[in-house]
Parts: sequence; C-alpha cells; structure tokens
Amino acid sequence: MGDGGDDGRLAARAAAGDAGWSTRDRFRLPPGVIYLDGNSLGALPVAVPPAVADAVEIQWGADLIASWNTHGWWLAPGRVGDRIAGLLGAEPGQLVVTDSTSIDLFKAVIAGARLRPQGRAVVVDPDSFPTDLYMVTAAAELVGLEVRSQAPGRPLAPDTAVALFSHVDFRTGELHDLPAVTAAVHDAGAVVVWDLAHSAGVHPVDLDANQVDLAVGCSYKYLNGGPGAPAFIYAARRHHARLDQPLPGWHGHDRPFAMTPGYVAAPGIDRLRTGTPPMLSLLALEAALAAFDGVPMTAVRERALSLSGLLIDAVDDWCGGEVEVVTPRDPARRSAQVALRHPHAYEVVRALAAAGVVGDYREPDLIRLGAAPLYVTHSDVLRAVRVLADVLSGRQWRNPDFSARNLVT
Amino acid sequence: MGDGGDDGRLAARAAAGDAGWSTRDRFRLPPGVIYLDGNSLGALPVAVPPAVADAVEIQWGADLIASWNTHGWWLAPGRVGDRIAGLLGAEPGQLVVTDSTSIDLFKAVIAGARLRPQGRAVVVDPDSFPTDLYMVTAAAELVGLEVRSQAPGRPLAPDTAVALFSHVDFRTGELHDLPAVTAAVHDAGAVVVWDLAHSAGVHPVDLDANQVDLAVGCSYKYLNGGPGAPAFIYAARRHHARLDQPLPGWHGHDRPFAMTPGYVAAPGIDRLRTGTPPMLSLLALEAALAAFDGVPMTAVRERALSLSGLLIDAVDDWCGGEVEVVTPRDPARRSAQVALRHPHAYEVVRALAAAGVVGDYREPDLIRLGAAPLYVTHSDVLRAVRVLADVLSGRQWRNPDFSARNLVT
Repeated sequence: MGDGGDDGRLAARAAAGDAGWSTRDRFRLPPGVIYLDGNSLGALPVAVPPAVADAVEIQWGADLIASWNTHGWWLAPGRVGDRIAGLLGAEPGQLVVTDSTSIDLFKAVIAGARLRPQGRAVVVDPDSFPTDLYMVTAAAELVGLEVRSQAPGRPLAPDTAVALFSHVDFRTGELHDLPAVTAAVHDAGAVVVWDLAHSAGVHPVDLDANQVDLAVGCSYKYLNGGPGAPAFIYAARRHHARLDQPLPGWHGHDRPFAMTPGYVAAPGIDRLRTGTPPMLSLLALEAALAAFDGVPMTAVRERALSLSGLLIDAVDDWCGGEVEVVTPRDPARRSAQVALRHPHAYEVVRALAAAGVVGDYREPDLIRLGAAPLYVTHSDVLRAVRVLADVLSGRQWRNPDFSARNLVT
Repeated sequence: MGDGGDDGRLAARAAAGDAGWSTRDRFRLPPGVIYLDGNSLGALPVAVPPAVADAVEIQWGADLIASWNTHGWWLAPGRVGDRIAGLLGAEPGQLVVTDSTSIDLFKAVIAGARLRPQGRAVVVDPDSFPTDLYMVTAAAELVGLEVRSQAPGRPLAPDTAVALFSHVDFRTGELHDLPAVTAAVHDAGAVVVWDLAHSAGVHPVDLDANQVDLAVGCSYKYLNGGPGAPAFIYAARRHHARLDQPLPGWHGHDRPFAMTPGYVAAPGIDRLRTGTPPMLSLLALEAALAAFDGVPMTAVRERALSLSGLLIDAVDDWCGGEVEVVTPRDPARRSAQVALRHPHAYEVVRALAAAGVVGDYREPDLIRLGAAPLYVTHSDVLRAVRVLADVLSGRQWRNPDFSARNLVT
C-alpha cells in the first residue's frame, strides 16, 4: 500500500527522509531505546540539565529572593510564553505559561463565556481528553451554561457562547481543521477555545492568522518542557481589555506589589496569570525550547507527516493486517502520532517496551506511537515497526508479564 | 527593654540560643549574607541539587515515561503531602501537594461552601494576603455567596458557610489563635479554611487536634521547596466523602486511566488533585523536606520565638526608637517574622541588602525580617540588627541608589 511496496522502497524513503536537517543532537536519548512517546512526555533536551543546575544552585541557592528581579523570574511566564507563541504563529504578548492545562481550560472556558454574555451553551467534542470534559462540565455549572457534546465541524446553534475543541484527537491522532472550525464557530457568533496539547511544537497552528480567540496547551509533550512542565494559555490581543478570567491572583494583578485588597487585572496577557509559577519547571521549559532554534514550524510539520506516513506504510507492509490503522491516512488529517487498534493493545505496548520500543496505550484497544520530528528519525520508525511486526507475528505479547496493569502506560 | 538590657546580655542569649541543636549545615547559604527572607523564599537545602539532577537526568532523561511508575511520579503529590502533613500535626492521607496557593484557595473556599449548602456568606480577614481576598471574591460570586470582611476572633453570623483566615499575618507577623478561632467558626456552624503560608514549617499547627476543616499553604517559604514550589491543600478525613471541589481534572479522578467522559472523584484526598503536577519543582520540594528530619516542630517553634524575641530586644536596645516594632511582643502572638515600621522602609531594606542583610519590604512602610529557625542563628540576628542600627543611625538609606523601585523586594 502507499509507495512502500517493498522493503527497499521503505528503506530508501527512510534514508531520504533522514538526509535533511536534524536536531537529534539537541536531545539526550537513552541508548538502546526507540522512543515513540513524545506525544506523552517529550525527551530531554541537552540544554536543560545545565539550565536547571544554574536555576537551583546560582539563582535560588546563591542569589535567593533577588532572582525575581536579577534573573527575570517575575517576567518568565510572559517571556517563555512569547517563545511558545512564536512556534504557534502568534505575535508576542498574547500567551503566558501558567498553571496546568486543566486549570487553563477552566480559565479559558469561563473567560470565553464571559465574552459572550448572551450565550447559553458550551459546546465540547465528546472525544476530548477527559479533563476537558470534566472542566467544561464544572465551569458550565458554575456560570449557568448548558453543555452540548458535538464533534468539530458540525454546525453550532446560535445560542452557543463558547466551543472547546482539540486540534489533534489524543486517541486517534486525527488532526482537525482548525481554520475551518474556527470560522464556523465565529459564524455562529461564538468564541472558540482550542486545546493544542497534541499540536503545539509539531504543527504551525497559525493562531493569529486563523483568528483563534483562546487556546490552551501542554508544554511537556512536543515542546519537551519536562514532566508536568507548566501549561500555556493564549488569548488574542483583541480580547484582552474585556478578558475576565475566574481565577484572579496577585501575579495577574495590575500592580501586584501594591498589595491592594481589590483585584485590578493587568492590562495585557498577564491577567491570565494567577499564583507564583513553579520556577524550576518553568526554567527547564525555557531551556528546552532552544531545541526549536532555527527550525521553521513548516519543516517540523513536513517531517511529522513524513515520519507518520512512513510508519503507516510500514505497518501496512509488515504487520499483515494484525493491527488496524486508526489514524487518518490523509496527510491533511493527521500529525505525528499514529494510533493502531489491537484487541490486546496493552500487552502489545508492554511487549514493545521490553523490546526497546516505547509507545503507549489508551483504553480500550489503542497502541499510540508518536514520531516527534525533532528527535525521532525515519530509521527509528522502520526499526520500531520491524519490532512491532515481530511482537505481533511471534505473539510475544502473550507473555503473562505483560498483562499486569500499572497506573501509567 | 526585655532581658537584653546591655550588649553582653544579648550576646550571652545569642550564644546560649545557638548552643543547642543545629540544622544549618543542611542548607547552602551564600557567603557574606545574612538571609532573613525565608518568609518569602526559603534557602536551598543541600539535598536538593543532587535530587533535581537525578530527576532531570535519570528519571526524565533516561527512564522517560516509565518514571510515572518506576520513580513514583504519580504518587508524589500524596507522598510529599504526607511528609508535610507530619509537620502540621496531621495524619497521612489528608494533604496533597498541588497547584499554587492561589488555586488551592479557590478549591478550599468552594469545597468548604459546598459542605454548608445552607450558608449564605464567606467571611475573610481584610488583612489577608491580597490573593486570598481576590479568590474569595471570585469564588463567592461564582457560587452566589456574600463576602464579609471580618478579623479572626470576632463572632460569626449563623448564616456563615465558610471562613478563611491566615494563621500568621503576612505583614505584621502576628500569629492568630488557630485553636480558638477554629472553635468559634465551628460554634457558628461554619467551615474554617486556614491559610498556613506563613506558619507551615515554623509552627506545629496541629491540624488534626484542632479539628481544622480545610487548609492551604505555601511550600517555598519555611518549607524551603524552591521558587514557586507547588502548594498544599489539607482536608480533614471526615469531610472526604462529601468533598466537592470546583476544579476537577484527571489526576483527581477515581480511575484516571480509564479515561471516561464523566468525572468520578477519587475516594480520598487525591480528589483535590487536578492536572499534571510540575514534577521537577515537586521533587525539589520532596528533597528539601529532608531538612526537617528528626527535628520536632515544637523545637522549631521554640527556636522561632527565641530568634524573633532576640531580634525585637536588640532592635529596642540598638535602634534608638527609629523603627516601630509592629509584631506583637507576646510570644503567644508571634512567630519567626518581625515587622518594623519606618517611613523609608523601602530604602532601608535596599540599604540593608547592600550591607549583606537580606529582608524584604511591604507597602507602605514595613521592613520584614524573617528568622527561619532551621538556618538562621541567634548570632546572625544580632549581626543583622547591628547592621540595621548602622543603616538607621548613619542614614545610609538616603543613598539615591536605594530609592529606585523594582518589581519584587
């Protein structure tokens, strides 16, 4: 299927794909492992360990409280935010790094609803990541809105206040049509909130050009910020003056050190900040973003499609129909992650890991393999699918060691 | 005044105070500096740099996604929470480390109000840290409650749902009577939320014995968790089954990896978790808490009073009435932090820092000097007050370099 009809053609495609630019040496990867789980936790950029050691030993240890000024801690959420904005097609001053994606969803949904006070409903894709559903439900109840489950692309009722969609489906890897869906939400008079958890750092997104209103996302997947690195929230500049978020804290205040009893929101994007940010995690993220230096997001997108296309074609050729490719084959509808369906997906993921190929599992029957373009090579992809084919054909997943359930897979 | 009527007696008190146990060697302190700002950012424990390097290079870099299981990342919020609970007089299973103090205030106030659905008002001390006021106002508006400003200790109306008070006043350093105030809130049929930002790690608190309902606090002051280390939230076990917090995320779900669309809260304290925690900051905090190993909180409390008492007496003796001691002299009403009033407090703090004594400033006229008992010695305190006396008598604060305003002081 595809153009990979024989092993030689796949190998030639891999060689051609790996002949271009490379940022693999910007990462530390463990020997003997093909890491295809950057869609869950990005690999460690080489710039991070010295930056974190500096943050701990010099900034905190030696310079102590003065570092809020002298090392720029206070301004870090906006400074790092501007760097991420650049990867998402947004001008500076519209994005801050703050809190977790969950908390930022709550801020975005309520702030979005308050921009449309005449609206009566929040629309959310039922296939969203669960927290998105929990937060929409909780937020809607607090502000008295109805929740409507609806996939992106279907027409919205005119009483919609805000619609929350994910750019990439976390299970299937399907890429939704952000420009068209955004336009449709606007046609209904509503505000759109995009969850970019699975597209930030792997897709150009073009937030400004697409007139997105609000967006949130995760910095520890394709942005490689480290486990639990703080999330980001974007609000288009045209909304700033009216933006009323539900979690006001002193870091979002217009004059935080005046310590006045009444809340006055900062004039710009800083009004989306709340409390004191986890500085070590935030500075690790800042250092991690250097891995993107000089790499246009169009090139990252192209590499993502090349890697995931090769992966799908190799699965078609080598896995003998034992898994179903769930991810759309149309390049316009996929990104870097490929999802494969197998009735024993959990055990297959465990068997892959034992053989040095790290992917992950999602209920009830999905194997997720993410080909992060900055450090996964085409050669990695072919070797990983070869291992998968062996695991499937040799029924290696039947080893009882692989059926014990852990918390995180 | 006091028993420090002459320099020799103060020096003898300092020597006696420093003759007991010491944990100073558990911290890295910069040479040539007397650090009296542990009430804002605790000093760096020696255990932290190697623990953070391990978290970055081994756990994240080498073991990658598997670390959620193999290095106990998933359980860290409760594991570190139990360690903090032990410092606050709480049995395990009632405290998690999650989000910022600001966010945790929002959770606690709304969860508290939902325990008293017949209540109509939230009471808050108008002298609270500003974020407490902002969050109470925002939360009360969302759940339809009235906000009443009221100092702790005054009688509460019977329609009070929840009352939020700070154990230690962040400006004056006044210690409120947590047992009596808690009992009074309960007598009114309401739920109490304590903000322990300025007492956690410096006071026994005794949450369980005092029947506290909910509490939040900061881990980067006297707990020394590092800049912006994640905060903690406590809920007494008797409330867990009915505890309904407003920010549901997958980390607080009963079966997080089932990824089901409906939220079902975890049975215990984990229901107060929300999103993915900033793991590097959280693991730094965990390592930092080793500084408390083997030190009873009663000894820490005793040391805090000894240090702050010596500081007040030395100011009385050496500063010639040029500053007003704002902190209560009664040991039952103070903790480790001493606040001094001076019309040019900002410039005095800057002049002190230039002379190697780091305190901080709060609007409009307060100098805050915090004597963190784990690493500040009585000898430090005397040397710092001697520098303060010189700054005041020599009018060193008049140097125009010291009047430029920075963001954080």
